[in-house]
This record gives sequence, structure tokens and C-alpha cells, in this order.
Amino acid sequence: MKSQVVTFLMQCPDQKGLVAKITNFFYEKGFNILSSQQYVNSIEKRYFMRIRLDAEEANISKKALEECFSEMAKPLQLDWSVNFGRVKQNVAIMVSHTSHNLYDLLARQKEGSLECNIKLIISNHDKLRPIAEMFGIPYHYLPVTADTKLQQESQIIALLASNEIDLVIMARYMQILSSDFINRYPEKIINIHHSFLPAFQGANPYKKAYDRGVKLIGASAHYATEDLDEGPIIVQNVESVTHDSTPKTLKKIGADIETLVLSRAVNCHLQSQIIVSGNKAIVFPEAGE
Amino acid sequence: MKSQVVTFLMQCPDQKGLVAKITNFFYEKGFNILSSQQYVNSIEKRYFMRIRLDAEEANISKKALEECFSEMAKPLQLDWSVNFGRVKQNVAIMVSHTSHNLYDLLARQKEGSLECNIKLIISNHDKLRPIAEMFGIPYHYLPVTADTKLQQESQIIALLASNEIDLVIMARYMQILSSDFINRYPEKIINIHHSFLPAFQGANPYKKAYDRGVKLIGASAHYATEDLDEGPIIVQNVESVTHDSTPKTLKKIGADIETLVLSRAVNCHLQSQIIVSGNKAIVFPEAGE
Amino acid sequence: MKSQVVTFLMQCPDQKGLVAKITNFFYEKGFNILSSQQYVNSIEKRYFMRIRLDAEEANISKKALEECFSEMAKPLQLDWSVNFGRVKQNVAIMVSHTSHNLYDLLARQKEGSLECNIKLIISNHDKLRPIAEMFGIPYHYLPVTADTKLQQESQIIALLASNEIDLVIMARYMQILSSDFINRYPEKIINIHHSFLPAFQGANPYKKAYDRGVKLIGASAHYATEDLDEGPIIVQNVESVTHDSTPKTLKKIGADIETLVLSRAVNCHLQSQIIVSGNKAIVFPEAGE
Amino acid sequence: MKSQVVTFLMQCPDQKGLVAKITNFFYEKGFNILSSQQYVNSIEKRYFMRIRLDAEEANISKKALEECFSEMAKPLQLDWSVNFGRVKQNVAIMVSHTSHNLYDLLARQKEGSLECNIKLIISNHDKLRPIAEMFGIPYHYLPVTADTKLQQESQIIALLASNEIDLVIMARYMQILSSDFINRYPEKIINIHHSFLPAFQGANPYKKAYDRGVKLIGASAHYATEDLDEGPIIVQNVESVTHDSTPKTLKKIGADIETLVLSRAVNCHLQSQIIVSGNKAIVFPEAGE
Repeated sequence: MKSQVVTFLMQCPDQKGLVAKITNFFYEKGFNILSSQQYVNSIEKRYFMRIRLDAEEANISKKALEECFSEMAKPLQLDWSVNFGRVKQNVAIMVSHTSHNLYDLLARQKEGSLECNIKLIISNHDKLRPIAEMFGIPYHYLPVTADTKLQQESQIIALLASNEIDLVIMARYMQILSSDFINRYPEKIINIHHSFLPAFQGANPYKKAYDRGVKLIGASAHYATEDLDEGPIIVQNVESVTHDSTPKTLKKIGADIETLVLSRAVNCHLQSQIIVSGNKAIVFPEAGE
Repeated sequence: MKSQVVTFLMQCPDQKGLVAKITNFFYEKGFNILSSQQYVNSIEKRYFMRIRLDAEEANISKKALEECFSEMAKPLQLDWSVNFGRVKQNVAIMVSHTSHNLYDLLARQKEGSLECNIKLIISNHDKLRPIAEMFGIPYHYLPVTADTKLQQESQIIALLASNEIDLVIMARYMQILSSDFINRYPEKIINIHHSFLPAFQGANPYKKAYDRGVKLIGASAHYATEDLDEGPIIVQNVESVTHDSTPKTLKKIGADIETLVLSRAVNCHLQSQIIVSGNKAIVFPEAGE
Repeated sequence: MKSQVVTFLMQCPDQKGLVAKITNFFYEKGFNILSSQQYVNSIEKRYFMRIRLDAEEANISKKALEECFSEMAKPLQLDWSVNFGRVKQNVAIMVSHTSHNLYDLLARQKEGSLECNIKLIISNHDKLRPIAEMFGIPYHYLPVTADTKLQQESQIIALLASNEIDLVIMARYMQILSSDFINRYPEKIINIHHSFLPAFQGANPYKKAYDRGVKLIGASAHYATEDLDEGPIIVQNVESVTHDSTPKTLKKIGADIETLVLSRAVNCHLQSQIIVSGNKAIVFPEAGE
Repeated sequence: MKSQVVTFLMQCPDQKGLVAKITNFFYEKGFNILSSQQYVNSIEKRYFMRIRLDAEEANISKKALEECFSEMAKPLQLDWSVNFGRVKQNVAIMVSHTSHNLYDLLARQKEGSLECNIKLIISNHDKLRPIAEMFGIPYHYLPVTADTKLQQESQIIALLASNEIDLVIMARYMQILSSDFINRYPEKIINIHHSFLPAFQGANPYKKAYDRGVKLIGASAHYATEDLDEGPIIVQNVESVTHDSTPKTLKKIGADIETLVLSRAVNCHLQSQIIVSGNKAIVFPEAGE
């Protein structure tokens, strides 16, 4: 397990001695702790930890590590996951008409600031195919109508499976996914909603923002759940606007917020910075990484 | 009308030649235009103007100016108001338990950065009286129950009338005012709501924000209208928060946003920077004032 | 001059009756004023105006309009420029190693949110050629050493001339241009500096920011002038950072700010929103455009 | 040591097993860890920790705890301090002419959001005495000239000593303190500088900001050190401004930033959130406190 950063994410009921127990565990196995970040929800009495380990001098196999950790975790009622860091995650991007998020994600991946393999792009329109071709990513045009929805989703699910997709990014995919689809990928689908949730849920948020005369517009990246726009929020941001904006100019300003917010949320997910608890996302900041 | 800044606010259906007509009018009367700010709502075909005039060399009485302007305004279907700048507006502040907005408004007024006369403070609790006394402002404790609501409002209305109040500031007054009260002071009551509207309308917005797991909290200052929290928004702002916030810490962070947002909205109102059109507030920025 | 938006930018000594004179001029020629934005620098007694005109019903040729306007302008000591709106400006992008600004500008142009023709990309390295090829833009690799600097600049100048370039964007071009080069393109070269100027001028601003322990990092887009990083600032923005940042993570966060700031500055330039006065840029906001 | 929150701040060379050793130490003494925050400076190989302990079930005296911890700390070359939480710190505020920071600090203390005893206000002018009297705080007017500087500082030092002052807040005190003064209170003097440092060090930053034509203005709260405006930055913030600002309006906008930034820095200090290392301040966020 040489020259490798191993990241554990954990949550469990809060209890005395947790930090000591967990850090001792890794210390005794020969790991050096690069960073350890904790959060205690004092209302729900729940403990969350993200710990990054340098495996350089740890003389233990992945399998053995997982088994030992599991043993310690059980009596603590500790839910956990581990990321061994070496293999890049496989990502699928879903889009409709709008290209700013797509361009941004593809460029970041190409530049190396978004560490993942973008395996394919799926769309219910053929419009953005030229962008996929520029970046050399397979583009799957799967049109959809009310009648063909389930069938189209089956095709998508098959594509995700055959490409061994770890993360689905809804980069302005303007279709509502079925509960069945969503539930196959719990905490594995990130959606960008073009408003500061919970304001302006549903369709046409910029029109609604114009009609309400708000002085701020925003965007929210969240995990997709059965209840539309109700999933755990990962990143949100806003920008000031004035009375002088039209729905069209709001859309233009909003595009920049959407771009930043979505790419940051995806990056947090890929770097194992997020633990979901109920409908909330605990998002640890990067720790000097 | 010597050494005086006169500010006109106007709105009318958009039509050709408006800027020329209006600026000519003032030019011919001998006014120097200090700043002229315009906004055309191209969707509703409506024109808005704020114009600040140096009256130094204008040889016309207030009354004559109003009459002449009225004459020009009529065929243009132009709604307007004028602020002759010399007399400070009379302000009443309404509060309940929370003191941060009250301290802030009183200190700004005392420092001269909020130009107005704070004539009185009205509260449904006696708690904040010591603050009123520190600043030497009369404090009226008018408790209220469901049964005495109308009677208490009558007392408030009498106080506002006898003090010739121009602007009422609801600085965290936690009672809903009756439609009758609201309608007596159209565009003359500014309320601070402790969320980024339209998110989290109604009571306990910080608790709701915590429950939803948002990554931003905010505040909105708006004119009070019959529909609670639906009035024209004047100023909004937000601040980033993390999963680590509790309703209590959100409240603490939020207090700073509320303070800034309310004082800025009040200042915009006092400086005649706002024109209301439907449920929207057109807020012109200060023009080098 | 049908169905066309004409934009005038003007500046002159402040004097009575300016707004009336100018707006009358256009009114009489049959133009409809879409928006008129003004700024008076009351310290330097200088007047600035941006006026957008609908030429639909104006029965006058470009040449006649320019001549008439010139005549009116002369006695007012009015400096002005006009943009007839129909023809897209020709743009050259200069880069070195860093690709985020390049990707962003190319994608925005392709999407239509940056209205211009990107005619060529010039670099002192061959590294970013593949990006130019993806977007189908000619890429000119012109290496430079201390000895060949003047010669390389001559090549660049020839390329700019033969491509009829209206605007040069230094999108992280890490060479200092000679005064001679700069002076050929007054207010026609926009540079992105990766700090909130005037902090951290010169090289390695992120390293300097780390060393100083600042809690904010930023970026500034400005017109290039002879004095490096001293030109008129067009757009600036910052983002909060913590002690936990390294020069490397600051660079990553900063890249997003640089991207936003540069594209906004370029857009303001292309939309004729900027008037330069001394070392300051007056940047009018979009007026519902 | 019942019902008490104990906060340790530590720093030492980074070394294997630190987290485990430290958390074990407290675990074995019977403390419950409320939060533990760490930061590793990977460039300087230095480790920092803030740990908050619930002392409810810890059966150990303050003295014994300090001795035991000292013993463990020595071989680790660990610098540390501990805050036993029960006693509020004594604070002195120094001011000159400007009142916004003073009002804000006094109001926050009164409201309970700034936990400390404000023992006295010291000024080189008599102007702000009425504010001190409103809040019932002793006001010491100590005028100063170039000739009387050392003598005046001696008076101040005597006042700080007799009032057992833990923290000095320079809330727009417009005099430069001598090195001797500064060195008596290492990391115990917080100054507000009215610019985003390192931009616009020294006097008249708003005038300099106007002259440079920046699009952002800001404020920085920092520990005072011998080199003026060079001390460790604790909190910084900025706000967008436009060309339309004058030095006067910049000052007005800046006042709000100064107010927020200073009170937050003071609060971080009082809550033991800050560790200074070289010229940098490591500022841990509140941990659900």
C-alpha cells in the first residue's frame, strides 16, 4: 500500500473516547495521519470524521485493513467508507441544451483539476454532440417522451453499468429521473439547480426570480433524491443583481454561478470530502491537499 | 431654493424623447443636473428616472416648480415625487426582543451616517427600554394579545400621527401588522426578514435553514405589504455557512447580515433612491453623493 | 441604419446643460434612447456618458451622424467614440502555459456569450496548441528569449495587423510587453493579474499571498500600460481563504477568480461599457441589454 | 473542574502519532473531547491543534492538568496555552475620532455576543467620551504630542496593568505605538486597518484606493507588531465598489467592513480560536460552539 493517500469517512453515535480510539487504531497499524477532520452534531449527538492517511510505512493489505477496521467499527455502530486513492472514478455527464457546465467540466478534467475519467455524455438532445467530439468523449443521444421515459432510462442504466460509472453528474439535464433510477445511485448523482434552494424550486427559476424582484440570484449543487430539489445541498453560491436584470440577463449571470458551484461539488465528491446524514451533506474543506 | 439638492423620482410608460423632455425642463428652469439615473423595463415598457438637481441658480419657488412639473408630467402619464432635501424625515422604530438592529440604527443616526430624526421606539415588550434610554429616545411599551391587537394598533397609529412619522422601521418587530395598518403607510414601512426571501418565509427561518442544510444564510429588507414577506425587496445579502452551524450559530451570523441589510435599505429610502413598481423596488445606487 | 443598436461613449469637462444638449441631439435626429448612463466625477469636474440608441427610425447615415456629432462635441471639449454594433470585433489571445482562461474564453465565444471573432492565439510556448486545435483557432508559436524579444514582438505586431485585431487579451501571457508594443494598442490590451491589485504586483502573487498569510485572494483585469500592473482596473474579485491553503491550493482557487474576472472585463470592453480617464476605468453596468 | 469547557491551543514540529498521543492523554484523564481541530503546515512541517474538552467527569485539578500536560509536551517540543473558560477576559479599547467600531464593540458586549469585560476606553481625544458614558465605561483622555509620546504610553501601560487587561483593541486609534509598548503585549493587541492588506498600508487608505481606481475596498484585523500593518492577519473582508465612489463614500462603505472584521477578530481571540506562527494567524472556525 506504498505511496498512497487513504481516506476514511465515518459517522456514528457520539460517544466518549472516539477520537482516541480511531486515531490509535491507525497509529498502531503504522499509518501517518495527514489530516483528521471531525464534526459533532450536538443536536443529534452524532459524530463524523474524515481522516487522511499516508500509507507509506503501513505494512497491511487493503483487505486486512478493511477487516480490522470493520471489527473496531461494529461495537461503535460506525458507518464508514474508504477511498484508496489510486484509481480514478468513472463519471457520466447528463445534459440537455445548455453547454456552460459541460464545457467547464470537460476543460477541468482535461487540465487535471478535476481528477476522474469522463467516460460518456448522455443527452436527450443531439445539440451538444460537437462539444463531446471536441473533447473526444462518447456522446449518447437518447431522446425521451412521456411514453418512452422508462425505456430511455433503461438504456441509460445499461450504459452506466457497462461503463462502470461511479458518479453521475446532471449538468443541466432537464428531465426528472424516476425514483427507481435515483435509488440505484444513492449519493452518486449530483444535480445543479439554478437557484439558491429552497427558493425557486422546480422549473424556470430565473423567471421566478425576476418576477419576485430578488436582489440576489444563485445556484445549488445537491445530491439527487426522490423529492426533486430536496436532496442534500453540497455547495451554494449567489451573486448580487439589480432591478435592471431581465430573465435573460439573470440567466447569463447565473450561468457563471452554476459553473462554479457544480464543479466544486463534483470535486468535493471525488476527493471524498462529503458525508451524507439524513438530508444534509457534511462537506469537509480540503485539508492542505 | 438656494444651496439645496432637490431629488425627483419618476415613472411612466416608456415613450420616445422622455430623457430629452425631462432634462430640458430642468435645464430651462436653471437647475444644474448633479446626476440623472434611468432604468427602462423593456418587458413592461416602463420608464423610471431619479434626477438630482442643484438648485443654486434656479429662480423658482417650490410651489411653482411642482406646478410646472405637474403640467409637463400629465400628458406623459408620469407618476412622480420630489424631495427638497432640507428637512430630515421623522422615523419610528418598532422592536420586540432583539436588539442588534436597534443598536445599529441608533448608533448610525447618532454618528450622522443615517440622516433622519428617530422620534420614538415602539415595542410589545419592555425589554429594550434601557437601550432607548441610553440614546435618549422615547420608548413606548404597548403589549399586545390576540384580543387587544386592534386596540394596540390604534395606539401605535395615534403615536405615529402625533409624531408626524414619515417612515416606520420594523427592526425585528415580531408581530404581524393588520392590513389596515399596512395600508395607511404604503411604501413607508420597511421590515427586515431574517432569510434570503423567498426562501424560509414566516417564522423561525434559522431553524428552517438548519433543517434544510443550506450552505448560505441571508436577510432581506423589504417594504411591508398585506401579504407577509411578499413586499418589494430593497436589499438582500447572504453569508456562507457550513454543516457545523446550529440554529443558534446561524442566528448569530445572521444578525450581522440583518444589521447591514436593514440599515442600507433605510438609507436608500431616506436618500430617495427607491421607486416601487408593482411588487418590485427599483433601487438606484448612490450617485457620488 | 435600421434595426441596430448604436452606442456612444463620451467624456468632457462638466458643464451646465450637458444632458439636455446631448439627449436633444439624438432625439432630434430620430433616435430612440434605449439607455443613458452618466457619471460625474465631482472631484475632477468631469462628465462621462454612455448612451445606447435604437437607430430604427433615424434617417441618417453613419458618416453624417459622426459629422454632426463632432460639430456639437467640439465646443464642449467632448472626447467620444461610437460603436455601430453590427460588426463583431476581432480578438487575439496571448497565452503561455496556463489554460484555464483560454478554455473559458474559447468556450464563451463558441456559446455566444462573448460576442467577438477570436482570430488567433499567440504563445511563447507550444504547449496549449491542442486547445487551439480543438476549437479550430490558428495557433502561433513564437518563442522568445531576452535577445529575440524585439524581433518576436515585431512578429506579433505583424500578426495583429494582418488580422485586423481590435482587442488583445493577455490570458496569462507571462512576458512583459515593451512600451512600444503597449503604446500601439492604447486601451486595446486587457491583462489578467492574479492578485487583487495593488497588492502583490509582479511575479508569483500566490506565493506572496501565502507568505503574507492573507485571508483573501483575488484577481484583477486591467488595461495594459507601460507601468506593469498599474493600468486602469476594469474588474476585480476575491475569495476567502484560510490558513490551510498552500501556494498550490491558492493557485487552484485563484484560477476560478481569474477566469470570471477576465471574461467579464473582456465582455465589458466588447459591449462598449468602459471609458478610461487617467489611470481609472469607468465601467458602466449593462443596462438591461 | 465541573461543567466547564477547557480549550487547549498547541503547536509543535509535525511528528508521527501526535493526534493519538494527545487525544489519548485527555481520554485517560476522563475528559470528553467536544471538538478537535487540526492543521498541518506541510511546507514548514508544523502541527497545530485546538481541542475543546468537557471537564464534567475529569477528576483533576487545573494545576495537576497543567503539570501532566507539560510533561507530555516537553519531548514533543510542543508550545501550548490553555483557557479554562470560566473567567471573562478584561479588554481595553483604544480610539481616536472614529466611532463606528466603538459603538459596535460596546453594543455586542452589552448584548452578550462578545464575551468579555470592557474595563476602559483610552483615547488621545476627548471626542468619544459621550459614547463611553452612555455605556457606563470609564473613559481616559490622554492627549499625545511627539514630545509627550513616551510619557503618554507610560500612562496607558499603567492603566492596562492596574486594570489587569488581557486584550487591547485598537478600534481606529490613529497613533503608532512604540515597539516597547507593542512588545509588552505580544499577540494581545488587535488592530483594525482600513484596507485589504498588504494593499494601501499606512495612512489614508481610502484616498489611495480612490486614486488607484480599485473595484474593491476592504479591511483587515491583525495583531499589532513592531512593523506597522505587517502583523499576523486574523480576518479580512472586502466589498465591491464602482468608479462612482469618492474617498468619502469609500470611507462610508468601508466603515461597515471595518466593523464586521474587527468584531469577528476579537471574538476569535476571546474564544481561543487563534494560534500565531511566525507572521501568520491560524484561525480555527467555531466548532458548533
